[in-house]
Amino acid sequence: MAAAWEEYLDKHEDQHLTDLFEFLRIPSVSTLPEHQDDMRRAAHEVVERLRAAGVPEVEILETGGHPLVFGSWHVDDNQPTALIYGHYDVQPPDPLDLWQSGPFQPEIRDGRIYARGASDDKGNIFAAMLGVEALHATAGKPPINVKFFIEGEEEVGSHSLPGFVHDNRERFACDFVICADGGMYGENQPSLTLSSKGLAGCQINLRTAATDMHSGMFGAVIPNALEAMARLADSFHTPDGRIAVEGFYDDVVDLSDEERAETARVPFDEQEFLNSVGAKAFWGEPGYTPLERMGARPTLDFNGLWGGFEGEGNKTVTPAEAHLKISCRLVPNQEPGKIVGLIRKHAETHCPEGATIAFGDTAGGALPFAIQPDHPALVKAGEVLEQIYGTKPLALRMGGTLPVAPVFQRELGADMVFFAFGMPGDNAHAPNESMVLDAWRTMSRAYCAYLEALAR
Amino acid sequence: MAAAWEEYLDKHEDQHLTDLFEFLRIPSVSTLPEHQDDMRRAAHEVVERLRAAGVPEVEILETGGHPLVFGSWHVDDNQPTALIYGHYDVQPPDPLDLWQSGPFQPEIRDGRIYARGASDDKGNIFAAMLGVEALHATAGKPPINVKFFIEGEEEVGSHSLPGFVHDNRERFACDFVICADGGMYGENQPSLTLSSKGLAGCQINLRTAATDMHSGMFGAVIPNALEAMARLADSFHTPDGRIAVEGFYDDVVDLSDEERAETARVPFDEQEFLNSVGAKAFWGEPGYTPLERMGARPTLDFNGLWGGFEGEGNKTVTPAEAHLKISCRLVPNQEPGKIVGLIRKHAETHCPEGATIAFGDTAGGALPFAIQPDHPALVKAGEVLEQIYGTKPLALRMGGTLPVAPVFQRELGADMVFFAFGMPGDNAHAPNESMVLDAWRTMSRAYCAYLEALAR
Repeated sequence: MAAAWEEYLDKHEDQHLTDLFEFLRIPSVSTLPEHQDDMRRAAHEVVERLRAAGVPEVEILETGGHPLVFGSWHVDDNQPTALIYGHYDVQPPDPLDLWQSGPFQPEIRDGRIYARGASDDKGNIFAAMLGVEALHATAGKPPINVKFFIEGEEEVGSHSLPGFVHDNRERFACDFVICADGGMYGENQPSLTLSSKGLAGCQINLRTAATDMHSGMFGAVIPNALEAMARLADSFHTPDGRIAVEGFYDDVVDLSDEERAETARVPFDEQEFLNSVGAKAFWGEPGYTPLERMGARPTLDFNGLWGGFEGEGNKTVTPAEAHLKISCRLVPNQEPGKIVGLIRKHAETHCPEGATIAFGDTAGGALPFAIQPDHPALVKAGEVLEQIYGTKPLALRMGGTLPVAPVFQRELGADMVFFAFGMPGDNAHAPNESMVLDAWRTMSRAYCAYLEALAR
Repeated sequence: MAAAWEEYLDKHEDQHLTDLFEFLRIPSVSTLPEHQDDMRRAAHEVVERLRAAGVPEVEILETGGHPLVFGSWHVDDNQPTALIYGHYDVQPPDPLDLWQSGPFQPEIRDGRIYARGASDDKGNIFAAMLGVEALHATAGKPPINVKFFIEGEEEVGSHSLPGFVHDNRERFACDFVICADGGMYGENQPSLTLSSKGLAGCQINLRTAATDMHSGMFGAVIPNALEAMARLADSFHTPDGRIAVEGFYDDVVDLSDEERAETARVPFDEQEFLNSVGAKAFWGEPGYTPLERMGARPTLDFNGLWGGFEGEGNKTVTPAEAHLKISCRLVPNQEPGKIVGLIRKHAETHCPEGATIAFGDTAGGALPFAIQPDHPALVKAGEVLEQIYGTKPLALRMGGTLPVAPVFQRELGADMVFFAFGMPGDNAHAPNESMVLDAWRTMSRAYCAYLEALAR
């Protein structure tokens, strides 16, 4: 017999999807100043949703950056308190011309909800809120104490949050954090997340002359900023994919033999994986398998590289400036500030003659995070997932970054359990982002089951 | 006693400057399709100007590309016929934010006329037309037969013209061509141009996956298109500035000892030159002086390089595509088609594993050009310049490209004499393009004197 919350969710499914679409239509791009009002609209939408879920205390907190939505529902002193974390901000949608439908015009195609944020993270947080709404509608309240912490700066590194969480430790106090951001290993393969990577980055601005020059007059004699930048950029990796920045790997905790053996047990079809992103070959640090690299090895990525004329046709110019955006995914025990320092030193050491470089801040810095595999809330999550999927979840390390995970750990003494339903094919951070409709349906139901399982 | 044409030009100077400004306001950017109407407006402005100069036959000729303005004034069967060449199209103005005043809002500052095209080439052709206008107003007609050939495709490689000149050889027949495009060695140092470089280029489009990817999930394992492009781009030169494309230098006619000695006599202050463009150091092919490289050695220039996220802040994406615009300046006897073939072969050979490349056409191809130092019209030009400046002109090779020069040579048997007054500090093809106001004044007068000197 279906649980009452399941019947509720079945019955209101069309309306909930309509409501999600409204939420997805708000272009809450946190990195672009012109979307500041949209950020606030999205925060208010979260407030409304929490109220609809019956959460008695809901407020918008000013963090100094984009606002944070906080909700609290204390039901029983004898029950644990879970803080459900997620974010309502999204990545920029460009390049726009690669989207099949508008990034902020959600639509369903082939069993997927297409929109920027469908998976990362609006779809996921919306489903988590629906779970509590269903429990409220059918049982009057959730079985444990629940707090909601829905921020608006995840995609820009959550830089306001460390100080804000520190200053509000009592308000956010909890036994553990449930992260409604992230995903499963595959549509038929649930997984638990044991760690997430840290993040560190900067922008390098390179200049060779005061202004762009006529290539006929100056191309033969003045350094071309694009040539100099290509040379500098090329110096950051060895051709076989190892990061060439001196000291970059110094603090990395290497995988144990046991962890490598465990990773090797994960079913991973290399060709299928390549096909899923339309790639021909793997690339990256030699000496590790792709799965090991994804979860447990640090990277240095170029996120943007530009200079000179990008229009149609040609412009015979010798460009005077070029720009490179770098971000690194870090693993325990790498420290973001130290890594940025090493990148700067590398850039200065390898700066081609005749070029000058300056550094820009990209405001992304986060520590890596890890949770013990036997954490009770993680074990419970595994049991719920096994019941839903009929298969034991894999325990995995994650390549993505949750900047607040180590913050909650440090400030609240609360470990984070990732409990979200994004899938590898969701194109998070890319054009044509989507969420599997069935995964979205599953998630609200899974939250009901998980919160029930967590009750003492 | 001043010549009559000089008095005429003095008297109408303000009006002529006003008229020039009108011409400069038309954004006749030939490479951008959205400026097609502006191109036609600019062509009509040239027509009006030629009519004002008394040229009896003026017409707009459809070339298949942007229109060509042709004018003819036959005055005497016993006099030679000069075809005055120039172009009314201009380079794109971007990056716009580096312009102190609008690129199409001409203004005078510190003795310079600032606007896109002020020097290259609207200011120059306008002055040439004013010279004929002054001769018409004061002597009734020019002393020799004059044809005007003002095209609209110079900045995109004049690709319609070779066939068009071939098909209209009788119409354009002349004894020699006077090029009202180009410039002098310096404000106080006139010069004659002995050669111009050819041009060849293409665009390389590189791809590593179907779509941009989340760097946390994919950065460790899928080739980053920007990293791959940086590696490929870096392979085109040795670190010391030699072009590393196999066979690139094979057909180059090297400088003779005599030419090198002559080049060494040119007064060239290296530090002053660097200062003029705000550069710290020279760069380019080793084994040649900067002046030798500028005039007589081929180059391979990056004109644009881009991919990934260029906005403010950061976007933690692993880009799937990157683009590189390349153009080469060629010297005798390099052939554009062959050079593009070598570039393609190099790119294919050096394409990083996991990346695929495709080539785009940038529609720029031109042969190099050279004139004999003892050509009578060139000698006359030298005499006129010496009279104006009080100093003997230098005989130089030019780094820029005049695609039609070799076309006129081949189709009409007419060599080209460069007779224009752009200056090295004009920022042609760059932000804040300008023309020295005095040089602009000098040029219309110099055309009167030159046409008189050319009369038998």
